[in-house]
Amino acid sequence: MSIPVSPSIRKRISESTIHRLSLYYRALSLLEKENYETVSSKELAKREKLTPAQVRKDLSFFGSFGTRGLGYPVKELRAQISSILGLDRTWRVALIGIGNIGSALVSYKEFSKQGFQIVKLFDNDQRKIGSNHKGIIVSDIRNLETELRNDRIEMVVLAVPATVAQYIVDDVVRAGIKAILNFAPANLKVPDDVYLRNENMSMELEYLSFAIVNNHAQKRVKLNI
Amino acid sequence: MSIPVSPSIRKRISESTIHRLSLYYRALSLLEKENYETVSSKELAKREKLTPAQVRKDLSFFGSFGTRGLGYPVKELRAQISSILGLDRTWRVALIGIGNIGSALVSYKEFSKQGFQIVKLFDNDQRKIGSNHKGIIVSDIRNLETELRNDRIEMVVLAVPATVAQYIVDDVVRAGIKAILNFAPANLKVPDDVYLRNENMSMELEYLSFAIVNNHAQKRVKLNI
Repeated sequence: MSIPVSPSIRKRISESTIHRLSLYYRALSLLEKENYETVSSKELAKREKLTPAQVRKDLSFFGSFGTRGLGYPVKELRAQISSILGLDRTWRVALIGIGNIGSALVSYKEFSKQGFQIVKLFDNDQRKIGSNHKGIIVSDIRNLETELRNDRIEMVVLAVPATVAQYIVDDVVRAGIKAILNFAPANLKVPDDVYLRNENMSMELEYLSFAIVNNHAQKRVKLNI
Repeated sequence: MSIPVSPSIRKRISESTIHRLSLYYRALSLLEKENYETVSSKELAKREKLTPAQVRKDLSFFGSFGTRGLGYPVKELRAQISSILGLDRTWRVALIGIGNIGSALVSYKEFSKQGFQIVKLFDNDQRKIGSNHKGIIVSDIRNLETELRNDRIEMVVLAVPATVAQYIVDDVVRAGIKAILNFAPANLKVPDDVYLRNENMSMELEYLSFAIVNNHAQKRVKLNI
């Protein structure tokens, strides 16, 4: 059973809701493994440190899914969220920059687990070009635009130094890529029809330092939204 | 000049506001480097792809800071945000697990740039214990609790396999650590007085797949909050 989600509902989903959908998706995957058939908003809320009201509000996007007293059907809800997040398919991903972060990401199992398959690697270092990382031969970044097109790449992960990031991202955009995850600490410019996410891991530490410095506010600052 | 932020204001700051404060902090640091003395809410909004109204609302936490027509004083506002995020000091951080992700994080410059200094490394692999990573000798995880205490560690970054993460986090909590950034794909349990953030980089890719799958909703789904 799959309940369709209407375009108008998809439009109303905010960034923080997407984040919580990712969390629910993980919780539901685990619950399915543990052979749960249904789950209450209370249980989901407890697992993700949210309020039951927030969970019910988020999941109300999917229509009258939960049954009062019975909870949500785990398998169906997981499939529904998987579909809306685009996790019911695989994505062809290219990784640019095989430095410290890039090398770690090639082996990062959470990507492939969610269908994000790194199928191309690029670098500008002659010692790295041609080398094999987890079965993928590193390509020369000089062929970036052509190879991104030829290999039907859908997403790019950028793990290059900040100084060259804009230059490379311009090439990526020219290749028609519409989704970029950037690890470089740079304020990159892309056209309006290209989705760019910046990953800065020190920002996660900043929540922690904020929390410690302002610890009397603990109850109000909900960590792990 | 430093304008004090009252405890009651600190309490009202939500998680997404903290995230935006981190973004403003980065933009202001850059503006300061570029010798700007003031910045308008419009300019800050443009740089971070937000609305000027959102910027004004966030910064109103800091009292009547901006001057109509003149904008916000860059240096003072940066200092203020730095203080509220706890970035006006250094933090002693221990990193546990020197695998792919852990090794990359030892070299991750964004941590030290914001004052998060990795001063201890731990692993359980005899081949890694005693080895030198960026000037730090890897300690045996068997001495975790004692060494975390003796070295006055304030935050822990956890980059260990999911299967052992809870076991290790229990040790970390016993050592009195109150702030943990976890990279393991595990649903860790900590006491209420311990702050835990989970970093899962595939969740960033899920925003992108969501955006592609639901691309007609582009205008409403604000990426890069």
